[in-house]
Amino acid sequence: MLSKGHAAPILYAAWAEAGLFDRTELLTLREISSDLEGHPTPRLPFVDVATGSLGQGICVAVGLALNARRIGSDYRTYVLIGDGESTEGSVWEAAEVAAHHGLDNLCAVTDVNALGQSQPTQWQHDMEQYAARWRAFGWEALVVDGHDLNALLDAFEKAKRTSGRPTMLLARTIKGKGISFIEGKNGWHGRPLKKGEEADRAIAELESQLVKLPEPAASPSLIARPSPLPPGPARATPRVPAPSYAPGEAVATREAYGTALVKLGQADDRIVALDADVENSTYSEKFSKAFPSRFYEAYIAEQAMIGSAMGLASRGAIPFPSTFACFLSRACDFIRMACISGLNVKLAGSHAGISIGEDGPSQMGLEDIATMRAEPNMTVVYPCDGVSTERLMEAIAYHPGPAYIRTTRPKTPVLYEANERFEIGGSKVLRQADQDTVTVVAAGITVYEALKAYDDLKAEGVLLRVIDAYCVQPIDARTLRAAARATGGRVISVEDHYAAGGLGDAVAEALADDGYVVRRLAVREIPRSGKSEELLDRYGISARHIVAAVRAMAAGVKP
Amino acid sequence: MLSKGHAAPILYAAWAEAGLFDRTELLTLREISSDLEGHPTPRLPFVDVATGSLGQGICVAVGLALNARRIGSDYRTYVLIGDGESTEGSVWEAAEVAAHHGLDNLCAVTDVNALGQSQPTQWQHDMEQYAARWRAFGWEALVVDGHDLNALLDAFEKAKRTSGRPTMLLARTIKGKGISFIEGKNGWHGRPLKKGEEADRAIAELESQLVKLPEPAASPSLIARPSPLPPGPARATPRVPAPSYAPGEAVATREAYGTALVKLGQADDRIVALDADVENSTYSEKFSKAFPSRFYEAYIAEQAMIGSAMGLASRGAIPFPSTFACFLSRACDFIRMACISGLNVKLAGSHAGISIGEDGPSQMGLEDIATMRAEPNMTVVYPCDGVSTERLMEAIAYHPGPAYIRTTRPKTPVLYEANERFEIGGSKVLRQADQDTVTVVAAGITVYEALKAYDDLKAEGVLLRVIDAYCVQPIDARTLRAAARATGGRVISVEDHYAAGGLGDAVAEALADDGYVVRRLAVREIPRSGKSEELLDRYGISARHIVAAVRAMAAGVKP
Repeated sequence: MLSKGHAAPILYAAWAEAGLFDRTELLTLREISSDLEGHPTPRLPFVDVATGSLGQGICVAVGLALNARRIGSDYRTYVLIGDGESTEGSVWEAAEVAAHHGLDNLCAVTDVNALGQSQPTQWQHDMEQYAARWRAFGWEALVVDGHDLNALLDAFEKAKRTSGRPTMLLARTIKGKGISFIEGKNGWHGRPLKKGEEADRAIAELESQLVKLPEPAASPSLIARPSPLPPGPARATPRVPAPSYAPGEAVATREAYGTALVKLGQADDRIVALDADVENSTYSEKFSKAFPSRFYEAYIAEQAMIGSAMGLASRGAIPFPSTFACFLSRACDFIRMACISGLNVKLAGSHAGISIGEDGPSQMGLEDIATMRAEPNMTVVYPCDGVSTERLMEAIAYHPGPAYIRTTRPKTPVLYEANERFEIGGSKVLRQADQDTVTVVAAGITVYEALKAYDDLKAEGVLLRVIDAYCVQPIDARTLRAAARATGGRVISVEDHYAAGGLGDAVAEALADDGYVVRRLAVREIPRSGKSEELLDRYGISARHIVAAVRAMAAGVKP
Repeated sequence: MLSKGHAAPILYAAWAEAGLFDRTELLTLREISSDLEGHPTPRLPFVDVATGSLGQGICVAVGLALNARRIGSDYRTYVLIGDGESTEGSVWEAAEVAAHHGLDNLCAVTDVNALGQSQPTQWQHDMEQYAARWRAFGWEALVVDGHDLNALLDAFEKAKRTSGRPTMLLARTIKGKGISFIEGKNGWHGRPLKKGEEADRAIAELESQLVKLPEPAASPSLIARPSPLPPGPARATPRVPAPSYAPGEAVATREAYGTALVKLGQADDRIVALDADVENSTYSEKFSKAFPSRFYEAYIAEQAMIGSAMGLASRGAIPFPSTFACFLSRACDFIRMACISGLNVKLAGSHAGISIGEDGPSQMGLEDIATMRAEPNMTVVYPCDGVSTERLMEAIAYHPGPAYIRTTRPKTPVLYEANERFEIGGSKVLRQADQDTVTVVAAGITVYEALKAYDDLKAEGVLLRVIDAYCVQPIDARTLRAAARATGGRVISVEDHYAAGGLGDAVAEALADDGYVVRRLAVREIPRSGKSEELLDRYGISARHIVAAVRAMAAGVKP
C-alpha cells in the first residue's frame, strides 16, 4: 500500500522500471487518456485500493493483514505512510487495532521527510517523538536512515522476525534528496520543475547519481489495456436458507440483519463482519458468536473499521462493517474512497432515523441516505421487515461494488411471505386498485405509517397506491412512473430522514423526465428525545401527516 | 465538557442538586416535553455543545482552551471522556493538537471503568496502557482512584500547577459502584433497573451510602424556561471593506476566500481561522500571516480542527475552519453534531468538483453539497467569482448558525460589480429576456458554462434565462419559480457535483409545489484525472451539454 498517494509518480516509475509497462507511458501522467492518474486508483492493475486521502492506507493495510490470517496465508503486508499524515486520528485507530490483533505480518514505514504541504511537519526530524508514540501503542518501532538501502533491508528482516506485534520503520529521509537546490527545502511540495534550465539541471544531477538499468525488453502497453474497476465476486452465489418468520411477527430489521449475516456466513466463508463496540445493538454479535474467527472487533474506531473492511474486500472477502447509521458518518471519507475504489464493502447502519426514540438526535442517523446516495456507484437498500432484510442482505452481498443497508431500532411486523423476491433496483407495490388517487412512496419504518394512512383513508373511500421503495439506489423508476401515471401524477414520499438528499429526492429525480413532481414528507428540523411514535408524529412523517397531505393534494391545495 | 454524553443523567442530577432547577424535573428525563434529553444538547442552559457521539468532547475542549487564550482569560477547561471512546482517532488528534499548543489550561479526565457498551474495554483496568499513550503524546498523565475525592482534588491541583502541557487524569473507577449486584459487572450499559424489587434494592443501597443534602429552596423550573438554540453573534455587524476587483479579472474563489477572511479579521477580532496543513491551497494562509495569534494550525487532523472550531464558536468566536471540500468529509460526524448544537461554525471547502483537474478523484469534493444540505439548519453558499465570494463570506460570518462556503481551484473571471449585494437565500438572474425559452440554474464554475451556452444559443436566436444560485441552502425559491413560470416550466440545473443531493435536487424541491420538474446535469460516475475543461466536458456539465439539453428540451425530447 502506498498510503501517501501523492507520491504516485514514484510508484508508477517503479512498476515501469520493473517492466510492467513501457517507460515512455510515464509521460502520460495525469492526462485524461491515461490511467496514470494524479493519485493511484484501481484502474491500474497494481493498485488494490485508491489512495490520496491521507491516513487511510494504514487502515486498509490492517485489513490486508487480517485477510492473510483469514485465508491462512503467510503473505506480509507493507504500507508506506507520510510523516505529515501521522497526525490523522485514523492512523492511531489503525495502530490500536493492529496491536490488538497482534498483526506481526504487518510492516509499516513512515517516510519522515520533515516537510508537509504548507510547512515543516510538527516533529520534523525528531525521530524519537514518532518512536515513542508507536511504542506506546504496542508496536515495534525501528528508526532507520531512509536513504541507506542496507539499513532498510536489515530493518525489514527484523520486522519479519518480530512476533506478536506489528512493526513501524521510521525512515529518516530528505525530501528532494539528490537535487542540490531542492533537497530539504520547504516550498517544493507538488510544485513541478520549470521546463528548461531548472528541469535540465535537476535531471543531470539525478542521472549522475543513478545506476542506469537496461531498458526492459518489449514491455506491454498500459494504455492499450482495458481498465475496469475491480469485478464483483467471481464464485457462484451460494444458496442461503429462506427467512422463517411468521407473517405479522414483530422483529426489528436490525435483528434480522444479524440473523441474515449468520446465514450468509454459513453459506460462504468469504463473508466477514466488523463492528465498533455496538454489536449488541447492531446484532452483528450473532455473527461474532457463530464465526469468531471471521469477526473483527474495532472497538470504537469507525475509520479503522471501514478501512480494514476496504483491505479485506480488496483481497476477496465480503465484509459487513456495522455500527449506528449516524456513526458511519465518522468514516465518510473512507466510504468515499471505497467508492472510488469500487470495493465490495457492505456497510450496515442501524438505529436509523427519529424512530430510535429517547436517545435523542446525537444517535439518530438522518443524513445517511443523502451521504450514501451521493456516491454514484453505491447501492442503498432500506428494508422494512425481517423477510426483506434477509433477502436484501443476500442481494447486496452478491451485487458487485459498495452497498449500504439501513436498519431500524424498533420492532416492525413481518409484511412479506418468506418466498417473496427482492432485487437491487426493485420495489413492492403493497396496495393497488384502479381507483387509486395518490401514490405514497415509503421505505423502512414509514411503510407502516403509509399502510395506516391507507386504512384510514379507505374508510372514507379514498384509495392510495402504497409503494415500499426498499431499494433507494438504484430506485425502481419504472414502477414509480407507472404509479405516478396511474394516480394522475399525485405522488407523496415519506421518510424517516432529513428532507435533502433522501428518498424524496430519489423519487423526484426518477419521475422528473415524465414531468411528475413529488410532495416530500421528511424530518425538517433538529429533532429531540421522545417516544418513537411521538417523534414520527411531531416531525411530520406519521400516518396523520400522510392523510393530511393526501387530502390537500386531492383538493388541489398547494402546501 | 461531558464528552461521554450517555452519562447525561449524572450531569442533570448534579445541576439539580446545585439548585439550578427543581429535582422533581429529573423525572421528565427523555420525555418529549423535557429538555433533559437522552444525551445533552444546548437546549439546556448548562450545555455549550451537544455530545453523544464519542471522541468529540476532547476536540471541543481544545477549542474551549484555545478560546481562553484568545480572550486573555485564565479560565480552565475540564473535559470528562470515557475509556471506551479513547480508541477514537479524534481523541489522538486532540491529544496532538493540545500538546502542540501547550494547552496547560486544559485538564481532561478519563473515566476508566473498564466496561464498554458490548464488552470489557481493550485495556480494562491496565492504567499504564493509558498513561504510556498520553505521555508519548506529550501530556502530563496522572493515575488516580476515581472514587477517592481527595485524590481527585489533589490531581486537579497538580494539573493546575503543570505548565507547558495539558494534563490527563486517568481515573480508575468501578462501573455501577455502590450497587452490590451491578458494580463491576458487564451487561448493565444503558439498561434500566426493573421497577420494583430490583430498583428499590439499588436505591436503598445507594441511599445508605450518600450524604443527604438539604433540598435547595425554590429552584426555578427548567421546563417552563424557553429553550432556544444558541443565538447568533450579538454584537453589531462591523463594516467590511468592499471587494476591489476589476470586472473580468481572473481570480480563484479560494483566493478571494483568503482575502475576505483577512478583511473580516481586520474588522472583527472574533473572527478566527483554522486549517489542516493546506493553508497554501485554501488561502487561509493570508489570514495566518495577518493574524498569527488567531490562526490555529491543526496539521492534518480534520476532526480536531472542526471540534476545536465548535469549542471556539460556543464561546463567542466566529471560526472558519478550512481544507479541501473532500477532506471535510473526514469530519462529517463533527459537522452533524455542530448542527445539532446550532453553532456558528463557518466551514470552508476548497477545490470543489472535477474542475480541480489533474489531481484526480481522491481530491475532488463531489458529495459536499449533499452532505451539507442534509443538515436542516446549515447555510450553503457557492460563489462563482471574487466579488460574490467576499460578499458571501461577510454574509455567512454574521448569519446565525452553521454555514458552508464552497470554493473552486481554477481562476474565474470577475462577473459582479464591487457594490453588488448578495444575501443568504438569494440568487442572481444573469441573463433575462421576455422570449427566454429555458431557465438554466448554475453555481460556481458552471455559471461560466451556462453563460457560454447562452452565447452559443443566442447566435441561433434561442434565449436562455441564466441564474447564479450562489446560495444553495436556503435556495431562492421565489426567483426560481418566477423563472420557471417565465420559461414555460423548462428548467435545467448544472453543477460540478454528483447528481444526488446537490443543486439539482435543491432546485427540484423548490419548484415541486408549482408542478415544475428539473432536468439535472451533474457528474454521474467516478471521475478521473485530466484538464479542468476536458473533465467538465467528459462528465456532462460543459456548455456543450447545456446546449444539447436545451435543444432536446425545446424539441420536447425526453432524455
